[in-house]
Amino acid sequence: MSEKNLQVVLASRPAGAAGETNFQLVESAVPVPGDGEILVRVDWLSLDPYMRGRMNEGKSYAARVELGEVMVGGAVGTVVASRHGKFAEGDKVLGTLGWQRFAVSDGKGLVKLPDPRLPETVWLGAAGMPGITAWMGLGQIGAPRPGETVVVSAASGAVGSVAGQLAKIAGCRAVGIAGGTAKCGYVVNELGFDACVDYKAGRLDAALKAAAPDGVDVYFDNVGGEILDAVLRRVNAGARIPLCGLISGYDGGEIAIRNVYSLLVNRVRLQGFIVTDRMDLWPGAMQELAGHVAAGRIRYRETVAQGLEAAPRAFLGMLRGENFGKQLVKVS
Amino acid sequence: MSEKNLQVVLASRPAGAAGETNFQLVESAVPVPGDGEILVRVDWLSLDPYMRGRMNEGKSYAARVELGEVMVGGAVGTVVASRHGKFAEGDKVLGTLGWQRFAVSDGKGLVKLPDPRLPETVWLGAAGMPGITAWMGLGQIGAPRPGETVVVSAASGAVGSVAGQLAKIAGCRAVGIAGGTAKCGYVVNELGFDACVDYKAGRLDAALKAAAPDGVDVYFDNVGGEILDAVLRRVNAGARIPLCGLISGYDGGEIAIRNVYSLLVNRVRLQGFIVTDRMDLWPGAMQELAGHVAAGRIRYRETVAQGLEAAPRAFLGMLRGENFGKQLVKVS
Repeated sequence: MSEKNLQVVLASRPAGAAGETNFQLVESAVPVPGDGEILVRVDWLSLDPYMRGRMNEGKSYAARVELGEVMVGGAVGTVVASRHGKFAEGDKVLGTLGWQRFAVSDGKGLVKLPDPRLPETVWLGAAGMPGITAWMGLGQIGAPRPGETVVVSAASGAVGSVAGQLAKIAGCRAVGIAGGTAKCGYVVNELGFDACVDYKAGRLDAALKAAAPDGVDVYFDNVGGEILDAVLRRVNAGARIPLCGLISGYDGGEIAIRNVYSLLVNRVRLQGFIVTDRMDLWPGAMQELAGHVAAGRIRYRETVAQGLEAAPRAFLGMLRGENFGKQLVKVS
Repeated sequence: MSEKNLQVVLASRPAGAAGETNFQLVESAVPVPGDGEILVRVDWLSLDPYMRGRMNEGKSYAARVELGEVMVGGAVGTVVASRHGKFAEGDKVLGTLGWQRFAVSDGKGLVKLPDPRLPETVWLGAAGMPGITAWMGLGQIGAPRPGETVVVSAASGAVGSVAGQLAKIAGCRAVGIAGGTAKCGYVVNELGFDACVDYKAGRLDAALKAAAPDGVDVYFDNVGGEILDAVLRRVNAGARIPLCGLISGYDGGEIAIRNVYSLLVNRVRLQGFIVTDRMDLWPGAMQELAGHVAAGRIRYRETVAQGLEAAPRAFLGMLRGENFGKQLVKVS
């Protein structure tokens, strides 16, 4: 194989906001699979906010990425060489292949794409990790009942869009929070949320009150910070808050919860969760989500960056909310 | 009856710290019970931190006390006149009788003391509302498993002391947090906690690490603020935090949670609760707690103020942590 491998490695840890200098593109030879291994060509790389946490020195959801290591990331790829009994050349696979063109794998944690009738990128989005994250946080912690109001931040994103649509499927009023009129329009008109608050338009409290006139029963939080405090001013007694992400704090921004009194007075359950803690639930969740996608009950949008070289910039843009829907990189 | 009634009413709402001028002593005639009513002489008044919240304008756990109204409070009293079929003169009763010498009641919410063999004040403390609060928060939210580490703030207080002793009964390592060496000594030597951190001694992080070397699985929080943040630096994955009170913020102090990232990374469940939400659980809890007290498995200490006139000062002292154990007022 005359082709070269290309990898994005962590060059330095961010001090405050992450930047392009924290990443380095490294060219190397395409690795050769050993006995019991496969060589996978990465077709699609998923970019997700959790990756920002892995760049830090401290404890994140999981082990941090070490300096000089390939950035972690879920991907869909094609088996191009196999010395593994369970995978054949040409198989489409899904797994944590990293920010690189080629990956060698012993097959652990890799699965063949469950349903070839769906677009392969759906397994990185609505029926993949982000969708399962929404499914798990909403179902296991949010536990919405028909007629309740579910508010979702980062509502046009890969996780939030599924959380809100699942809330609608559960018979709830779904209220999105997103940045800008375009995203808010999409959330209401294409995804079917009942309302959307544009947090960039100011007057967050008034807008939230108008969008959730009966108060908030579930807040699926992807961002933390001021928006969480604003929602805490609107929660009903017994509200549940699945804490899924803290985008507003990943670059060192303020994420303190000031309205702690509301947690007490309103008997709020606020709970962090990590989707990879319950891998046992993934197969069932994927099947359910894929069914919703196939039936048109869950819709999604993608932003695609072309080529691995574009991954760092696309990732940084996503952290600033510049993407629209699921952020992907077309690697090969 | 030539005796006068004496009541403590809310004279003004506190701006910041509550003070004696927020209360007023009012003398009046002893009320006369109507048909279906009883007249109760208040023997013991319970003073509890939740009362501070009722003094504020805003929403508290329950309805605020209005200006000029008698301060709310649980009490043990003696029926001195009855026109009610279920109560007789001389009956000892427990209920929300308020900060006053005499109360007229239609019997709703009043119960006769469940077990005459125990000291009557136990129904205002370890086997009453504070004890049930500990029982409910620890059992329903904390759900400690044997071998886990349970940290309790305000550990020498009426709620905290029971929470820690229940943790010991459940087979856990119990770590208290209290102010001063006397309270910490009591928590360890008399209540049987495994360790106690004196938050007034400084070096909170180091002391907490030494006291909870295996991390924190349950944090029964009565205070909020900096101590909550310090505990969040020591929590294990899957930790549970029953949020019972926010003493540090009742007078306007800072109670922001800054370490929100820990909630996410460690999948912490933080949940506010109010003991009166589950009145259905009270009879069973009281019976269980009374059994522990009778058997010497739950011990407690009381601070008694003499006479209703002393109630405001005793209450304010309790908010500053000047009491030791359960704060009571001997009214009659």
